[in-house]
Amino acid sequence: MQKEKNGLILLYTGNGKGKTTAAFGQALRALGHGMKVCMIQFIKGKWSCGEEIIAERFSDNFKLCRVGKGFTWESKDLKEDKEMAIQGWRLAVDIIKNGDYSMLILDELTYLSKFPLVDPQEILDVLKEKPPHLHIIITGRSAPNELINLADIVTEMKEIKHPLKCGIYAQKGIEF
Amino acid sequence: MQKEKNGLILLYTGNGKGKTTAAFGQALRALGHGMKVCMIQFIKGKWSCGEEIIAERFSDNFKLCRVGKGFTWESKDLKEDKEMAIQGWRLAVDIIKNGDYSMLILDELTYLSKFPLVDPQEILDVLKEKPPHLHIIITGRSAPNELINLADIVTEMKEIKHPLKCGIYAQKGIEF
Repeated sequence: MQKEKNGLILLYTGNGKGKTTAAFGQALRALGHGMKVCMIQFIKGKWSCGEEIIAERFSDNFKLCRVGKGFTWESKDLKEDKEMAIQGWRLAVDIIKNGDYSMLILDELTYLSKFPLVDPQEILDVLKEKPPHLHIIITGRSAPNELINLADIVTEMKEIKHPLKCGIYAQKGIEF
Repeated sequence: MQKEKNGLILLYTGNGKGKTTAAFGQALRALGHGMKVCMIQFIKGKWSCGEEIIAERFSDNFKLCRVGKGFTWESKDLKEDKEMAIQGWRLAVDIIKNGDYSMLILDELTYLSKFPLVDPQEILDVLKEKPPHLHIIITGRSAPNELINLADIVTEMKEIKHPLKCGIYAQKGIEF
């Protein structure tokens, strides 16, 4: 029972669709309860997204930060990517430490530990020291085992079928 | 290319967390694009949810229908459950046929084919005849193979870890 008021660490991983969408849904559910939410997206897609428009509507309580411009999986400027990722991570650390928010979403955080752009141990250490009330939602493929162990709820989104492989293109409202 | 403007059928299934949350995130993303969205929830939880508050904010374009009252997995009044489910399904059929909406979310639809409360073949037939522009998002455990075959995008949400099993209780903004 003593954990009832504590914030959780949620992890959405796997290769399937729905990780960012679930995190975004989580943000909105929390906003519906009047909670203060920050979402940091470590990979910025090339689309102008529905998220941005929604973020504006809830701008009192919802901070949406996209680190880097044109920061995608296909980016060729690795040095800039790295700087942007580190900048995004520093923002995350600040938000975790100052405790102003009730929920922090770290979208595609696992990307940081991939190269790594940020020391994976540092990420774990910061997450372990989060304020008790703060919920942290993490998304991204190939989550390291240490992160899976640390998280309270872990869901693997497993791709069973995806239309990009059948020649159907990205759809407004679905993919972006 | 000819499929580019067509609506997709998305299916979120599996035993893990994030199915309804992803569908809700999808709804909001679509609303951000000015699309008209209807969400029918075939299983109503016992919580007053963040979804309701968000739905109010977007009431011009977002219709949220919860069929039945106290309609949960633990319900003891099966006759009432069945009537409510059928009523919800009829509403879904109307919305699919009239084509007014750009996105229809059928949350926990797979529950209907479980007993079955609605003939599973009827569900497939109606889905197959959806207007081309309409996106349909379906959630629920144990999706039948015919539904998996019909859907364009299928993600299985697989539970790796869940706190209810470790004695952590449902959290505001997370579970409801």
